[in-house]
Amino acid sequence: MKLLEEKIRTEGEFLGNNILKVDSFLNHQIDTNFMQEIGKEFATHFKDKRITKVVTIESSGIAPAFATASLLKVPLLVFKKQTSKILDTNVYQTEVISYTKGTTYPLVVSKKFLDPSDSILIIDDFLANGEAASAVIRILQLVPAEIAGIGIVIEKSFQPGRKKLEQQGFEVYSLARISKLENNTIEFISQ
Amino acid sequence: MKLLEEKIRTEGEFLGNNILKVDSFLNHQIDTNFMQEIGKEFATHFKDKRITKVVTIESSGIAPAFATASLLKVPLLVFKKQTSKILDTNVYQTEVISYTKGTTYPLVVSKKFLDPSDSILIIDDFLANGEAASAVIRILQLVPAEIAGIGIVIEKSFQPGRKKLEQQGFEVYSLARISKLENNTIEFISQ
Repeated sequence: MKLLEEKIRTEGEFLGNNILKVDSFLNHQIDTNFMQEIGKEFATHFKDKRITKVVTIESSGIAPAFATASLLKVPLLVFKKQTSKILDTNVYQTEVISYTKGTTYPLVVSKKFLDPSDSILIIDDFLANGEAASAVIRILQLVPAEIAGIGIVIEKSFQPGRKKLEQQGFEVYSLARISKLENNTIEFISQ
Repeated sequence: MKLLEEKIRTEGEFLGNNILKVDSFLNHQIDTNFMQEIGKEFATHFKDKRITKVVTIESSGIAPAFATASLLKVPLLVFKKQTSKILDTNVYQTEVISYTKGTTYPLVVSKKFLDPSDSILIIDDFLANGEAASAVIRILQLVPAEIAGIGIVIEKSFQPGRKKLEQQGFEVYSLARISKLENNTIEFISQ
């Protein structure tokens, strides 16, 4: 998605240590017009996959996943990062390692919103090591629900996330694929 | 909003201790069609207020705030509940008490996305004690940005949130106002 690559080049900040900050349009301030375009890209790409539900992880995945699910006219299911007093006890739960934050966190979802008849599209803002997506997949395979594909806004292609997911047989559709992020320069894999 | 009251009556779960769970359509699984209707309600109500930005708090506020901001054609700014390694150091920060979770959490937003020329619409999923909205307001008053109004999906009118906000001179527009939530019955303030 050329427009996304342009936004990353012009608005992204490169903080060293492979960290790209895109908080002016993607995950802190959200450019709603642009996010609708992202939703259109995903919805168009996966339109023939008989998607019954979009899933994502709170909170940066919610905006692109909501835009996509709205266009596909299906519900969005948000996997939660923490247990809550008022969340159902009848849940699937797993642990995720966050390399960015140097911590682990629980990933929780109510069993009642997932069904073996579901065909699930996973949407997330970033793919790096693939830990979050893999955790979602672990839970979906317990249902077991069909995983129709994985849509990623920004992929750090120099990290092993895509490979991990493809090795399990899943399609990964990333709107921007960064091959290099060093010394204040960024390179994309052309699509 | 009659449709919202109906959804709460038919899909809501009443857990006692004034807790209402609406995770089948609002804050865990999200009914995207219905959420677009919620966005339309807010966007229509505040359309003449010269809104330049919608703000909300992660993560349950994001979907209704995104739907609203998209229709108003303005950016959405998401206040974060935790500091992050890669969040800018140039931030506003305050503390919020969560009665639901029995904890406090930090509320953080980058200074660069708020400006005295802004006219801000605050959107959130719930209003009970008003602690979260008050924390957002404290930060916006540091900018200082104009607060054009507060849009709430579900208000627990038997708790003091609305009163606190109105006493500070703000308009609170709630799509459902619950006057009573006891013994498995729910009553709304008719609007």
